[in-house]
Amino acid sequence: MPAALRMPEPELIDHAGLDSAAYIRIYLLGLKIFVPVTFLAFAVLVPVNWTGGTLETLKDVTFSNIDKLSISNVPSGSERFWAHLVMAYVFTFWTFYILYGEYKIMTNKRLHFLASENCRPDQFTVLVRNVPPDPNESVSEHVEHFFCVNHPDYYLTHQVVYNANKLAKLVEKKKSLQNWYIYYQNKYERNPSTKPTTKTGFWGLWGTRVDAIDYYAAEIEKLTDEELAERERVISDPKAIIPAAFVSFKSRWRAAVCAQTQQTSNPTIWLTQWAPEPRDVYWDNLAIPYVELTIRRLLLAVALFFLTFFFMIPIAFVQSLANIEGIEKVLPFLKPLIERKGVKSVIQGFLPGIALKIFLILLPTILMTMSKIEGFTSLSSLERRSAGKYHLFVLVNVFLGSIITGTAFQQLKSFLHQAPTEIPITIGVSIPMKATFFITYIMVDGWAGIAAEILRLVPLVMFHLKNTFLVKTEKDREQAMDPGCLGFATSEPRIQLYFLLGFVYSVVTPVLLPFIIVFFAFAFMVFRHQVINVYNQKYESGAAFWPDVQRRVIIGMVISQLLLMGLMSTKGAKSSTPLLIVLPILTIWFHIFCKGRFESAFVKFPLQDAMVKDTLERATEPNLNLKAYLHDAYVHPAFKGCELEKPAVIDEEENNPLVPTKRMSRRSSKYGSDVSSEAGN
Amino acid sequence: MPAALRMPEPELIDHAGLDSAAYIRIYLLGLKIFVPVTFLAFAVLVPVNWTGGTLETLKDVTFSNIDKLSISNVPSGSERFWAHLVMAYVFTFWTFYILYGEYKIMTNKRLHFLASENCRPDQFTVLVRNVPPDPNESVSEHVEHFFCVNHPDYYLTHQVVYNANKLAKLVEKKKSLQNWYIYYQNKYERNPSTKPTTKTGFWGLWGTRVDAIDYYAAEIEKLTDEELAERERVISDPKAIIPAAFVSFKSRWRAAVCAQTQQTSNPTIWLTQWAPEPRDVYWDNLAIPYVELTIRRLLLAVALFFLTFFFMIPIAFVQSLANIEGIEKVLPFLKPLIERKGVKSVIQGFLPGIALKIFLILLPTILMTMSKIEGFTSLSSLERRSAGKYHLFVLVNVFLGSIITGTAFQQLKSFLHQAPTEIPITIGVSIPMKATFFITYIMVDGWAGIAAEILRLVPLVMFHLKNTFLVKTEKDREQAMDPGCLGFATSEPRIQLYFLLGFVYSVVTPVLLPFIIVFFAFAFMVFRHQVINVYNQKYESGAAFWPDVQRRVIIGMVISQLLLMGLMSTKGAKSSTPLLIVLPILTIWFHIFCKGRFESAFVKFPLQDAMVKDTLERATEPNLNLKAYLHDAYVHPAFKGCELEKPAVIDEEENNPLVPTKRMSRRSSKYGSDVSSEAGN
Repeated sequence: MPAALRMPEPELIDHAGLDSAAYIRIYLLGLKIFVPVTFLAFAVLVPVNWTGGTLETLKDVTFSNIDKLSISNVPSGSERFWAHLVMAYVFTFWTFYILYGEYKIMTNKRLHFLASENCRPDQFTVLVRNVPPDPNESVSEHVEHFFCVNHPDYYLTHQVVYNANKLAKLVEKKKSLQNWYIYYQNKYERNPSTKPTTKTGFWGLWGTRVDAIDYYAAEIEKLTDEELAERERVISDPKAIIPAAFVSFKSRWRAAVCAQTQQTSNPTIWLTQWAPEPRDVYWDNLAIPYVELTIRRLLLAVALFFLTFFFMIPIAFVQSLANIEGIEKVLPFLKPLIERKGVKSVIQGFLPGIALKIFLILLPTILMTMSKIEGFTSLSSLERRSAGKYHLFVLVNVFLGSIITGTAFQQLKSFLHQAPTEIPITIGVSIPMKATFFITYIMVDGWAGIAAEILRLVPLVMFHLKNTFLVKTEKDREQAMDPGCLGFATSEPRIQLYFLLGFVYSVVTPVLLPFIIVFFAFAFMVFRHQVINVYNQKYESGAAFWPDVQRRVIIGMVISQLLLMGLMSTKGAKSSTPLLIVLPILTIWFHIFCKGRFESAFVKFPLQDAMVKDTLERATEPNLNLKAYLHDAYVHPAFKGCELEKPAVIDEEENNPLVPTKRMSRRSSKYGSDVSSEAGN
Repeated sequence: MPAALRMPEPELIDHAGLDSAAYIRIYLLGLKIFVPVTFLAFAVLVPVNWTGGTLETLKDVTFSNIDKLSISNVPSGSERFWAHLVMAYVFTFWTFYILYGEYKIMTNKRLHFLASENCRPDQFTVLVRNVPPDPNESVSEHVEHFFCVNHPDYYLTHQVVYNANKLAKLVEKKKSLQNWYIYYQNKYERNPSTKPTTKTGFWGLWGTRVDAIDYYAAEIEKLTDEELAERERVISDPKAIIPAAFVSFKSRWRAAVCAQTQQTSNPTIWLTQWAPEPRDVYWDNLAIPYVELTIRRLLLAVALFFLTFFFMIPIAFVQSLANIEGIEKVLPFLKPLIERKGVKSVIQGFLPGIALKIFLILLPTILMTMSKIEGFTSLSSLERRSAGKYHLFVLVNVFLGSIITGTAFQQLKSFLHQAPTEIPITIGVSIPMKATFFITYIMVDGWAGIAAEILRLVPLVMFHLKNTFLVKTEKDREQAMDPGCLGFATSEPRIQLYFLLGFVYSVVTPVLLPFIIVFFAFAFMVFRHQVINVYNQKYESGAAFWPDVQRRVIIGMVISQLLLMGLMSTKGAKSSTPLLIVLPILTIWFHIFCKGRFESAFVKFPLQDAMVKDTLERATEPNLNLKAYLHDAYVHPAFKGCELEKPAVIDEEENNPLVPTKRMSRRSSKYGSDVSSEAGN
C-alpha cells in the first residue's frame, strides 16, 4: 500500500488511465475542501457553540455532548449567529477556490492526456448517426458520397455498422459450447476409463443420454456453419446495415471540424459527434431515430420520477405478501418447517427487509437499463447518466429520507402543500438533531464499506461461489477472477452524499467533519491501491465525467445553503436571510462561470490542439498508413470472433511501454471478458 | 391596403426582408391557432356552460351574460367538466400541430432566404472576440498568424476593430455643426440684408455675439483637423485596437466551420461566432472579456428581478412626493396658482399617474440599456434580449397584476408563503371573474393601439413637434420624417400577452376569443400594410427571433394549463388533476422536440448549404474578387464619415432589383439616419 501512495500521478495516469486517476482525485478534492474547513470550524464555531449554554437551561431535554457542540446550543436571536454567517461565507469561498483550482487541474490533465496519447482511431473518426434513407444508394455509398462532397479532400474512409445482434448471440453460444467441450475433454483425460456422457435437453438435465465430447463437437460444428451463414447474411444483406457509420478523416483537424459542425439544414439527420473509443461504443443504440429518441427520453424522465418517489409502493406490496401467513397459504407443505420457533423468528426478522434489499441491489442495474433505453451511444456516457439518476435517488431517499422520516412519496406530498419558504425550514430544523445518526451512517456505510473494499469481501465471496458452482475450465476461472472495474455509476453518487453531509454540517455541527475527513483519507488511500493493483479499465474516456462531479458538488453546496437559511430563520436570526440568499445566487453564478470556462474541454476537441498534433505526427511518422490503420478499428465485436483485437500499431506500443507495471499479464483476459460482457448486452 | 394584402409572400420578403415577413406571420399564427379553437369552443363549450344553470340559483350574486357563458356557470363536481377537459386536450394538440407547421415553414423560409441571398460579407466572415494579448505581436498580426496556422489555405483577410468612440463623437459633433452652418447659410440667402449672428456659449444662449456663418465655418474646420488627428491616432495607436476582429475566409464553407468550432483549449479566448450583418454590429460591446461578461450577466439578472418585482417602490415614493402639499412646500410661490379649483382637481387626478406613465414610456429604453450592458454584439440580439425582459415584465405586471390585484412585490411575497399547489388555485379561481376586464383591455389596448398604428398618431405628433422645435434644414426634416422600424422588442411581448389570454380563456370563457381573433386579423392587415409601405428596416437577421416567439407561445400554453388545473381543482373536479398534469409535461416535451428539430437552423449555418452556395457561386461568378469585396465591409461607421456605404457589388444589385418597390427612394436617407443613431450610442 505505501508503494501505491508513492507512485507519482503522471505514472498513475500512464498505468491506470486518466479515468481512474480522476476518480481518485474526487477523494482528494474532498480532503482539500474539508481539512481547512474542519480546522476553521473547530477553531471558531465549536467554542461559540460550546459556550452557548442553551441546552443546559432546558431541564426536560436530554442532550448529548455532540448536541452541545452544535448550533442548537446557541440561544435564539443571539449575536453569536454572526460567527456562523461569516463562516458560511468563508467556507463557500474556500470551496469555490478549491473547486476552481481542481477543475483547472483536471482540464489541463485531460488536454495533456489527449495531446500525449498515441495515435488512436477515435481521434480521426466521427460517429455519424441518422443517415437518411436513399432510394438509389446503399447506406455505405450514401455516406461516402455525402462526405466526399461536403468534406472534400480530407474524407478518408468509413465503416458501416451492422445489426449483428443475432450474430453476437451465436458467437456467445458457441463460446459456451466450446467451454463445455473443453470441460468434458479435461474430464476424459483425467479419467480415460469412463467416457463422459450428457443429456441433450435443457442444461443437460433431461433428454437422451449421448457421448458428451462427440455431442459438443457436433454442436460446435453446426453452430460454426450457422455463424458463418449469419455472418454472410449480415454482410451481404443491405437491410442488416443500420443508418449509422464511423467516418474517418485524413487528419485530426478535419475530424474535429466534422464532429463540431452541423452538416445539413435538418439537424436531426447526419448527426455527427466525436466517435467514442472502439471499446467504449455501445453498439445497440446507434440506430435510434430522432423522434423515437425524444419520446424515449420523455418516458424515461417520467419513469425516473416514479422510481425515485414511488418505489416504496411495490416494495410495500411485496412485503405485505411476503409474511409468514402468506407463505403458508401459497405453499402449505412448508407449514411444519416454518412453524418451528427458530425458523419463524428468522423469517419474521428477515422477510420484511429482503424485498427492499433486493431492490437496492438491483437498483444500479435498473438505472443502467434505463440509461440504455434512453439511447446513449457509449458506455462512458451510459455510466455518467446512470450516476446522475443514482445521485437523485440517494439525495431524495437517503439524505432527505433520513432527515424527514417517511417515504419519498409522503415527502413529495408534504412539499407540494407547503410554501417554498417553509420547506428549507422544515428540513433545516431537523438537521442538528440528525447529526448523531449521520455520524453512525458514515461509520457504518463509509468506513466499513472501504474496509470491505480493501478486503474485497464481496468479490471474494462471489469468486468462491462461482468457483464452486460455475467454473468448469481454466478460462472460466480466469473470468471469475476478473477483478472488474471501478463502478463509477454507483460509487460517485455515494461520495457526493459525503460532500453534501460535509457542507450541511460544516456550520451546524462541525463535530461531524472529522468523520468525513477520515472517510475521504481512508478511501483515497484504498482506492489508489485498488486502482493500481487490482482494477482493470473497461474503457478510457479521459475523465469526461469531471463536469458531472463538479455540478453535483455545487448542488450539494446550494442545498446546504438553503437549509442553513431555513435553520437560521427559526433561530430568531431572520435578519440574516438576505445575507444568506446571496450565497446560493453566487454559487449558481460560480457554476455557470466554471462551466463556460472549462466544460468545453471535456466535450469538444479544439482545432488548435488537433492541428498541433497533426503537424507533430506528420514530422515524426511521415509514412503512417492511416487507411490501413483505421480499416477495421470500428468493427462490431461479434465479427472479430472471440477476441476484440486492437489494431497492430497500438499493440506494438502497448507491448513496449515506457513504465513496466504489474498488470500487463492480465490484458489478454481483460479483452476476453469485455467481449463477453458487451456481446451479452 | 388591399394591395398590401394581395402581395404574395415571396415578394414581400424580397421587398421588406424576412424579419418583417416573419413578424407579420406571428399574427397569422394567432389566427391559425385561434380561429378553429373559437369555432370548437362555441360549438361545444358555450352550450355546456350556458345550460349549466348555477349562477341563476345563486340569488345574492350579480352576474352578466358573459359569466353565464363561462365555466362559472357549471355546477361544482358536474360531469360537464369532461367537456372542458377534452377540449383542453384538443386545443393543446391543435396548437402543437400549428406551431410545428409554422416553425417548419419559418425554418424553410429562412434557409431559402439565406440560400437565395446575394453575396453578403457576413457569409464569409466570422467575428473573433477575446483575442489574447501577445507581448511580441500586435492584435492584427496575432489574428493573422493564428488563423493562417489553424485554418490554413482558406484564411483570406481580416479587419481589426478600433475603439472609435471618441472619433464617433467628433463625427457626430461635426455633423451637427455642419447642420447649423447650412441653417445659417439658408437664413442668410433668404434674407441677405442681415448677417445672422450667434453666441459662442452653450446652445448659443450666452457668450460673445459673433458672425454665425464665419463662426461655424471656423468651428467645422477646427473639428475637421481634430477629427483627422484623432483618426490618425486611432489607426496608428496599437492601444486603440480592441482585441476583436472580423476574419474573412475564402469560402462560406470555411467561415461556417470556423464559426461553429472551438479554436483553442481555453474556451474563453479566440471566441468565434458567425459575424452579424455590417449594419447589425453593435460596436461598443466587442471588447468585453469573459470574466467581466459573466459578472455583468449576474448583476443584470439580479437587476431585472428587482425591476420586475420592485419597480413600484420608487414610483410610489415619487408619487408620495408629487402631491399638492409636497409641491406647495417645495415651490411655495406656485401656491396661489395651484389652489385654484380647476387646476387643483387636474393636478390631483393627473399627478399620481404621471410617474408610472413616464416609467412605462421609459421602460423599453431601460430594458434596451440593460441588454447593452449585458454585452451582446449585434443589434438584433439586443432586441431579442430586450423582448425577453419585456415579456417577463408584461407577464408579471400586466397579466398577473390584473388578475390578482396588488403590486408584483406583494404577489411575490404571497407566492413565497403559499404552497406550490396553492398558487395555480389562487390565480385560477380569479380567472373567470376577470374576463370582462380583459375584454375591455383587448379593445382599449389592442384594437385602439392598432387603429393608432394605422393612423400613425404618435409619429405624426412627434413629427410635428420635431418640425416645430428642432428642424433647421432639409436634412433634419428628412430625418424627422424617418418612419422608423418595427419595434420588435416591445410589440412582440405584447402580442404574446394576447396569445396567453387566448390560451387561458379558451376553455374558461370562450366568449373572449372572438375579440382576440379580431385583434389578430386587424393587426395582420395593418402591419402588412405598414411593413410594405411605411417601415424601413434597420438590419436583417433572417427571422432569427422565431425560436423566441415559439418559446414564449409555449410558456403561455404551460401557464394556461397550470391555471386550468388550479381552477378545476376548486370546482370539485379534483380527479381531473392527473389528466391535466399530463398537458404541461407534453407541452414541455413538445418544446424540447421542436427546439432540437428546428432551432439550429436559426443559430448555425449548415455545411451542406454553405458548400452548395460556394459551388454555385464558383460556377456563376468565377472572377469575383472576394478580397476587394470584403476589404472594408466591417469598418466602424465613424471611419466612413457621414455615410455607411455598402460595398459596390451589393449596391449594384440593389439598384437593379427584380421587383420594383415604392420604397427605393428612401434608401439613402435610411443609411444616413442609421449612422447617426449608431454613432450616438
